[in-house]
Amino acid sequence: MAKNIIGYAARSATTALAPFQFQRRDSRRNDVEIEILYCGVCHSDLHQARNDWGNSAYPMVPGHEIVGKVISVGSDVTRFKAGDTVGVGCMVDSCQVCSACEQGLEQYCEGGHTLTYNDIDRHDKTPTFGGYSEKIVVSDKFVLNIPESLNLEAVAPLLCAGITTWSPLRHWKVGKDSKVAVIGLGGLGHMGLKLAKALGAHVTLFTRSVGKEADARRLGADEIVLSTNEAEMASVKGKFDLIIDTVPYVHDLNPYISTLSLNGTLVLVGYLGGLEPALNSMPLIMGRKAVAGSVIGGIAETQEMLDFCGKHGITSDVEMINIQGINDAYERMLKSDVKYRFVIDMASLKTTYA
Amino acid sequence: MAKNIIGYAARSATTALAPFQFQRRDSRRNDVEIEILYCGVCHSDLHQARNDWGNSAYPMVPGHEIVGKVISVGSDVTRFKAGDTVGVGCMVDSCQVCSACEQGLEQYCEGGHTLTYNDIDRHDKTPTFGGYSEKIVVSDKFVLNIPESLNLEAVAPLLCAGITTWSPLRHWKVGKDSKVAVIGLGGLGHMGLKLAKALGAHVTLFTRSVGKEADARRLGADEIVLSTNEAEMASVKGKFDLIIDTVPYVHDLNPYISTLSLNGTLVLVGYLGGLEPALNSMPLIMGRKAVAGSVIGGIAETQEMLDFCGKHGITSDVEMINIQGINDAYERMLKSDVKYRFVIDMASLKTTYA
Ligand SMILES: [Zn+2]
Ligand SMILES: [Zn+2]
Ligand SMILES: [Zn+2]
Ligand SMILES: [Zn+2]
Repeated sequence: MAKNIIGYAARSATTALAPFQFQRRDSRRNDVEIEILYCGVCHSDLHQARNDWGNSAYPMVPGHEIVGKVISVGSDVTRFKAGDTVGVGCMVDSCQVCSACEQGLEQYCEGGHTLTYNDIDRHDKTPTFGGYSEKIVVSDKFVLNIPESLNLEAVAPLLCAGITTWSPLRHWKVGKDSKVAVIGLGGLGHMGLKLAKALGAHVTLFTRSVGKEADARRLGADEIVLSTNEAEMASVKGKFDLIIDTVPYVHDLNPYISTLSLNGTLVLVGYLGGLEPALNSMPLIMGRKAVAGSVIGGIAETQEMLDFCGKHGITSDVEMINIQGINDAYERMLKSDVKYRFVIDMASLKTTYA
Repeated sequence: MAKNIIGYAARSATTALAPFQFQRRDSRRNDVEIEILYCGVCHSDLHQARNDWGNSAYPMVPGHEIVGKVISVGSDVTRFKAGDTVGVGCMVDSCQVCSACEQGLEQYCEGGHTLTYNDIDRHDKTPTFGGYSEKIVVSDKFVLNIPESLNLEAVAPLLCAGITTWSPLRHWKVGKDSKVAVIGLGGLGHMGLKLAKALGAHVTLFTRSVGKEADARRLGADEIVLSTNEAEMASVKGKFDLIIDTVPYVHDLNPYISTLSLNGTLVLVGYLGGLEPALNSMPLIMGRKAVAGSVIGGIAETQEMLDFCGKHGITSDVEMINIQGINDAYERMLKSDVKYRFVIDMASLKTTYA
């Protein structure tokens, strides 16, 4: 058992994150033990820490955008060795035998994948703890290779924000000549722009805020459409093959549906809940359009995305913080005051216990 | 000009259909003049006659499930000759130059296709009149060949109910091993069962009514699920690759979404309006599921469907009526009291003017 691991945890839905010592589960023969160098801060960390989804267990160590170095590997592990630069995303296990797992779609595992934190290990029933900590132990099948060419600090958000936008881009076969739009310019949205552009698509950003034009263009947008401006919305009527909707709160989809082309799809990746106001079926029927959803991505697909990012020099735009600043970072995230992802330098953990 | 055509028309939203004499537009060189033998009675005929969609123009001659014999053809027409058995569906023209038309998807014509009735001819700006009449004049591109092997009375509904279910079955690539469900056993639904079964799919009918089991099995259903029974609904959780939803009124989609498989699609073909109660995005996201729409089908696809029906001996289950019974038929249709489509024997028109 990896003992006396240090990290930061939420003790309840209403308390700030604070230093926490805990044990990692016993290592198994297919495990990789990883020293965590950087961990991205995802919106869902905040939602889970505060029990916004009603399923939180405490103490909780959040964090599922993990980059680190391999410390040691179990006897059955051949793909990794000590010193390798690796990543861990939102999942650390799945059933491995269902139809989804067999297709490399572990994110849709019929038995339910095991989350990196706030979940229960499917073998020894211990709680899972995430990346706001010094070390993690993960089954080798869920460990990713990180291209050495990339800036490691800025790689961490690829493990959630990156794959969450990459997976729909690939599933809906975006490539040269595709017309793609991204709704919202946050952690997910800025990765959507970069990845869609690198895939060769014509890329549009929908935003409610003026003043994002220069940044959006730098990130890959060919066009920016102010979604509150009816004339701008009308100018892109019937245009997009795929819209990736990263907005994390309830919002009216109907104005965006009108900007889909024949056979176009709007894919939700950010908002869980009822679609209100009511989605009108008329434009879906009259243009064979679809509203779909997508969650993160499979392990093979995540490796594909990381390799693609290595080849194209793509990382996240990040703002580095120390772990001691995590609670302030949460408050700023609530105001969308981050360009475009906070990443924790886990070296800062050591000063907590120095 | 084809003069003194006799038919049945609605003179207003609130008057019963009654005998009506009118002129057909002047024939053009690419026109086919058709003597109408049979015309199916579609739900949309009733909706349009009563101005339920707010866009009706009177007098209106409904009818877009037309089977007849060619009387004469224009000088440019090579595909048809006098005496041929032909059909006309919901469209009689489209722009022919847009991207949708170029793909044979005239039903999604960017310039708007021309409806068989309650529309305006795009060349001479005369009103279009439908199939509740003795003759029709239609551009050859919108005239279909009818396989001689089929019972012509029962072919008429293929031109709308048939193609409306065929198109999504083909677009979503239904074949052997596909698991398909059809919601609702009316004109559309009964064709959905027949066509999906003939394509080799495992076919399930969702219905709210008990007592449809024997009929549904005869029409092609392998399974019948009572949608009001929670245990039956739970038994098909995560099962279907494609659900064709033919229900023509507002209804809760959420219970059906839970019966879609990973990557499954529910396609709406019957209901135009807001999706209420609110569609929940959670199961869409957690299973990469989609809600889509589809309207009728293209001309090439309609011919493909007719040829398929010819080969497999598929027609609609019909109840024959005389044109004088059309108003009673509408009342029975409102009560879903028809198995499964009324078809007008247009020979009955002659007695009106005898
Ligand atoms: Zn995340
Ligand atoms: Zn699985
Ligand atoms: Zn119809
Ligand atoms: Zn067109």
